[in-house]
Amino acid sequence: MRDVYVIGAGITDFGELWTSSLRDLFVEAATSAMRDASVDELDGMYVGAMSPGLFVEQEHLSSLLADYLGALPVPCVRVESACASGGVAFRSAFFEVASGASDVVLAAGVEKMTDGADVTRALATASDQEYEAYHGVTFPGLYAMMARAHMRAYGTTRDELSSVAAKNHDNALLNPHAHLHTRVSIEKVSASPVVADPLRLLDCAPVSDGAAALVLASEEFAMRSKRPLVRVTGVGAATDAIALHARADLASLEVIARAASKAYAMAGRGPRDIAVAEVHDCFTIAEIMAIEALGFVPRGKGGAASKAGLTSREGSIPVNTSGGLKAKGHPVGATGAAQIVEIVTQLRGEADKRQIKNAKVGLAANMGGSGGSATVHILEVV
Amino acid sequence: MRDVYVIGAGITDFGELWTSSLRDLFVEAATSAMRDASVDELDGMYVGAMSPGLFVEQEHLSSLLADYLGALPVPCVRVESACASGGVAFRSAFFEVASGASDVVLAAGVEKMTDGADVTRALATASDQEYEAYHGVTFPGLYAMMARAHMRAYGTTRDELSSVAAKNHDNALLNPHAHLHTRVSIEKVSASPVVADPLRLLDCAPVSDGAAALVLASEEFAMRSKRPLVRVTGVGAATDAIALHARADLASLEVIARAASKAYAMAGRGPRDIAVAEVHDCFTIAEIMAIEALGFVPRGKGGAASKAGLTSREGSIPVNTSGGLKAKGHPVGATGAAQIVEIVTQLRGEADKRQIKNAKVGLAANMGGSGGSATVHILEVV
Repeated sequence: MRDVYVIGAGITDFGELWTSSLRDLFVEAATSAMRDASVDELDGMYVGAMSPGLFVEQEHLSSLLADYLGALPVPCVRVESACASGGVAFRSAFFEVASGASDVVLAAGVEKMTDGADVTRALATASDQEYEAYHGVTFPGLYAMMARAHMRAYGTTRDELSSVAAKNHDNALLNPHAHLHTRVSIEKVSASPVVADPLRLLDCAPVSDGAAALVLASEEFAMRSKRPLVRVTGVGAATDAIALHARADLASLEVIARAASKAYAMAGRGPRDIAVAEVHDCFTIAEIMAIEALGFVPRGKGGAASKAGLTSREGSIPVNTSGGLKAKGHPVGATGAAQIVEIVTQLRGEADKRQIKNAKVGLAANMGGSGGSATVHILEVV
Repeated sequence: MRDVYVIGAGITDFGELWTSSLRDLFVEAATSAMRDASVDELDGMYVGAMSPGLFVEQEHLSSLLADYLGALPVPCVRVESACASGGVAFRSAFFEVASGASDVVLAAGVEKMTDGADVTRALATASDQEYEAYHGVTFPGLYAMMARAHMRAYGTTRDELSSVAAKNHDNALLNPHAHLHTRVSIEKVSASPVVADPLRLLDCAPVSDGAAALVLASEEFAMRSKRPLVRVTGVGAATDAIALHARADLASLEVIARAASKAYAMAGRGPRDIAVAEVHDCFTIAEIMAIEALGFVPRGKGGAASKAGLTSREGSIPVNTSGGLKAKGHPVGATGAAQIVEIVTQLRGEADKRQIKNAKVGLAANMGGSGGSATVHILEVV
């Protein structure tokens, strides 16, 4: 396999963007990434989107987005793995460059969620339709069961969950692209309305529109770039049972642990080498379980570590400096790409007021559904 | 890039399969391909599906299908490019093996269309939602405009269109997996009810359920196989404008010509080297335009060549020996994979009564929408 570099990154504002269509959002992020990379031609494109069919009645994004980007006749592939679609797009682009078939490939993610679709029903298609969604369970309900299991197994508390939301809202205040620019205290999160007990409104990521994009390139091509060189050193992916009832343990995210072990092995790195990480905090409990699965903290200690500040910008392993899904926003197909945009920004030292000092190795962990699929990527400044 | 081989192929019956769910169909095709390849472990999986969200309210096939195949925690990616989703799955699997990242990867396609969804509306999401579908045009209407343009430009006749349907129904009689096992005469096709003038009922592929799968492998792994060795020698893909009004010429499928020129160049082959081909005949006019775009016949001569029998099993370039989308059936996401299953079957000399003698080089051309995306693959017996 050839070495692969990220030479460009771009992102739109995340939010309820009623004047921008899906195609507008994608083109804004893609052109921003291409401008950043100083490239005007691509060999290939991958776009992650979870359900444009259900959200805006538009499939066939491969043709639509190559068309509206002005990139025709470049091959383009839409990939989907529920909320891990963006991470999967990045991984697919990686293989195309690593194989030697292409030198410059765009990997993007996009979702337009606020155009009037029944979002809760559309998102429920990421669960097992026949054994979960059909019977009425939705994603807050699934994650509530995971939160209960974690509380029971490890004594995780209500305020520990809230500390994740408070930290991520705090980080989002420093990210101009974030959806939510509101400071929330632990007390405010813990007192917000119940959505699915024990999860409350401020435990949940918002419904957002947005897009993010990266330009991946071969070494030969990347060496001509004038931007700081970021290499993709670890790539991991895994699947787990789609339905929660079929998992061995509701209180852990084995799918992230498995994807991470592949990425760590490929990069020759371990959890202690990671200077900054973006993880999939669709609900606060997901961040707690993700930092455990990634090995940043021991199993069962994620809640206490979060409340103690370990994952804050000043902590030993800053997590979700972008604001995370929780406060930056969660346009589902875009999320995995947006995580990598943040890591690239940090590794280049361009994260402005939220910059983590001397961040040389970063990690992005993207997850689909209630833990049915995941990708983990490790990136390093050369 | 490493060489890549197909070491296993499997397919379900195509039809209105009311007692089989999407997951059942996939598992049947995948296990059949894996048994054929004598493999029980995979390094990766790609599944093409156009719109399981709209057809059966199920996204996140990556997790669902790895789960039901018993393949957890193998990484799995769902890809989508409308009706070219199966071809795109094969191409993505090719890159993963060619890159050296994996040795054995499954490429499949599946669609469950007859579970009660509004199929015409779901299929229309492969067109431009904002400039086509929203205004009421559906796929028979789009292809009818292409047929009119072809008739006007080249004098293509009603009976020439019908000859494509008659041939493909004839071939399907010899394919036990085909959806439609009915002989139709040119006269019967030309006299069938109008759907979108000039296209009639028997010009249109049926709405089908089904799945198909291939096992791709590296050379080292393939050499251990006891089955005839089929190598993937050409891989091409392209995009074109999603909306018909934005194309330079309604009477040609440039997207197929562009994908083919890449595949031919990579394989060091030309149209005259192809012994057997499967092409995307969602409507009869599509096969006529496809054989022109592939260079099998001169531009504008596809209708006359079809009526003259050039593409029949006894002709100089047999096309759609499987029965094609027209008569084998068209479970949209499965179609591209099913085309390659037929080519592999022919190249191995296992196509029974529809076998083309001495077929050593085969081609599969899969298309999305009204020609917004396409893949072309060339396979050869070693």
